[in-house]
Amino acid sequence: MHAPFELAEIAADVLARIRDCGPRVHCVTNPVAQQYTANMLLAAGALPSMTISPEEIGAFVASADAILVNLGTFDIERRSAIEVAVAPAAERRLPWLIDPVFIDRSPARARFSRSLLERWPSVLRLNHAQFQALSGQGADAGAAARFAQACATIVAMTGDIDVVTDGERNSAIANGDPLMSLVTAMGCAGSALVCAALAVETDAWMAALAALAAFGVAGEIAAQRVQGPGSFAAAMIDALHGIDRGTLRARVKAS
Amino acid sequence: MHAPFELAEIAADVLARIRDCGPRVHCVTNPVAQQYTANMLLAAGALPSMTISPEEIGAFVASADAILVNLGTFDIERRSAIEVAVAPAAERRLPWLIDPVFIDRSPARARFSRSLLERWPSVLRLNHAQFQALSGQGADAGAAARFAQACATIVAMTGDIDVVTDGERNSAIANGDPLMSLVTAMGCAGSALVCAALAVETDAWMAALAALAAFGVAGEIAAQRVQGPGSFAAAMIDALHGIDRGTLRARVKAS
Amino acid sequence: MHAPFELAEIAADVLARIRDCGPRVHCVTNPVAQQYTANMLLAAGALPSMTISPEEIGAFVASADAILVNLGTFDIERRSAIEVAVAPAAERRLPWLIDPVFIDRSPARARFSRSLLERWPSVLRLNHAQFQALSGQGADAGAAARFAQACATIVAMTGDIDVVTDGERNSAIANGDPLMSLVTAMGCAGSALVCAALAVETDAWMAALAALAAFGVAGEIAAQRVQGPGSFAAAMIDALHGIDRGTLRARVKAS
Repeated sequence: MHAPFELAEIAADVLARIRDCGPRVHCVTNPVAQQYTANMLLAAGALPSMTISPEEIGAFVASADAILVNLGTFDIERRSAIEVAVAPAAERRLPWLIDPVFIDRSPARARFSRSLLERWPSVLRLNHAQFQALSGQGADAGAAARFAQACATIVAMTGDIDVVTDGERNSAIANGDPLMSLVTAMGCAGSALVCAALAVETDAWMAALAALAAFGVAGEIAAQRVQGPGSFAAAMIDALHGIDRGTLRARVKAS
Repeated sequence: MHAPFELAEIAADVLARIRDCGPRVHCVTNPVAQQYTANMLLAAGALPSMTISPEEIGAFVASADAILVNLGTFDIERRSAIEVAVAPAAERRLPWLIDPVFIDRSPARARFSRSLLERWPSVLRLNHAQFQALSGQGADAGAAARFAQACATIVAMTGDIDVVTDGERNSAIANGDPLMSLVTAMGCAGSALVCAALAVETDAWMAALAALAAFGVAGEIAAQRVQGPGSFAAAMIDALHGIDRGTLRARVKAS
Repeated sequence: MHAPFELAEIAADVLARIRDCGPRVHCVTNPVAQQYTANMLLAAGALPSMTISPEEIGAFVASADAILVNLGTFDIERRSAIEVAVAPAAERRLPWLIDPVFIDRSPARARFSRSLLERWPSVLRLNHAQFQALSGQGADAGAAARFAQACATIVAMTGDIDVVTDGERNSAIANGDPLMSLVTAMGCAGSALVCAALAVETDAWMAALAALAAFGVAGEIAAQRVQGPGSFAAAMIDALHGIDRGTLRARVKAS
């Protein structure tokens, strides 16, 4: 368990390493999220790529430092892209993350997510409704910890409070702003930032915590500057780009 | 025919119901428009979904409250998604809207739009060039009314003046700003807002009027705040999110 | 070779013609870039279209004034769309441009780009890494000039300094801002502006120079107004929309 002050330091360290190293994050994500996700990664200092062409995704994965698998559009092309991306990620022990968007609305996505979970993703990032659809359990911290242990992954369940657990270590982050839920692909962009963190921090639990804390703080800063969700979307990117250690120390609320 | 004051009240009521009910709007739309459309719907209080995968679009349509069919990218995948979306919409009497983007540039789209019109959409939203391509008539209010009657639908023909007609009731809205035509997918986003209104107002003519009046007023407010079309795109979303009854009363210009 | 003052005049003339004529630019580009590219073209006064459906791309190309071919997502659908777009462009002597995104990460894209180069594009726009991957040479002005001559095209190699060469005439532009590299699809949008310029200026070398000078100046203006890359993306569009001859005279740095 990390006190707020320590998490702020870790988040600042992780962001600094992303800016220094410029990790390559290959994203298999939905067309609604691609642009915002790419801009969020660039603002953080990472290098996004987005192709889902079966012929070349292998080359991109081969030179990537982390892989994002987002189910936001569940078409045949993306499903086969995910297959091509996940196999070498597992072989090369590349960190990869599943974001099972909208599995609560689509049984086919829920089934596919379960099959992906058997391939040891580094992190599963999802919201409360998605956790319930995937685990069949209530969306509380205890259930998240049990599910993390059963699946041998990190569960990052985001909401008013973000819960991050590897089954033994549990932490909760109370940062963020309600405007974040009014921008499409905001969760997807947060998952992408976790991927960038996974590329520079081998402790996946700590990487997820650091990224989500920084993301929530960026949301709070952005909310202070804007008049609504349209300008908030851009201000989030500005805030993440400009965030520094002092701001993280002053704002990270974790337990 | 509604006087301006009455339309402002109706628009305020419809927006309030969208915010209260959070209707689910499933959008079969083009990749250029997806992100902006989703953000506009979220700002209004609706819940967008965007998948076009044939395997699961049925599940999304089954739990949707209104359907948007936009022809902005006319690929095979989207055409088959439209087929899957429209059939249950008609069976369940779900409101649905056609936005026949660029049919004036593509004979194949014009043909497809005509076949969709035979399946009783709630609303046909289009601009002057598209109306001419589809109806073979001049883009005036009389022709719009005749076409609405012939097709048994609502025609919402947008331009400097928006004409909304069910063939018997005709109204014209004089809100909006020229910057709206400099943002891609602005018309698509307006159509999506009409869909959200259709989900909470059973009189489709009134729903279309209310949504387009609110959309035009949001455009006027946004134009006052910005330096060009880039910041205008975000300011439109802010304005729609923040719009209230007093602003609508002061600004709606309808006859 | 043009002195800075002359290039500013040419850039102002070209922008004025784009605004007057509203050229139609058909873009075969990747989903990440589509929205931003469309908005940049609209802000400049051009009319973008984006369909990649094989059935109708011919109709769009037939009524277009310039064609953009961007390899940012290299899927089967886009490759076949490129084939359908390029053949009539060559027949009708329509100006067209190749933007070989990410060929440095994908051998398949590099091969495909080479085959497209044999079909006489008007302009090849690329960055240093892409130039090296495509030409096998170092990314300097001399190599660019030799490659332009060998391929009988204009090479526009962008970076801190943009080099524009037809093999005999060489010019360098020193405008722009580092924030431009933190927005996804910024290069794609610049290529689209070159396409709009090609539609109104028959000297392709001059068109490329004019567009890239105006684009760089817009970047400088935008950078002064913003807090980070999120708001910069919108401010770029505002700046390009509002740019005038006086600003170009004061800022264009070319040799």
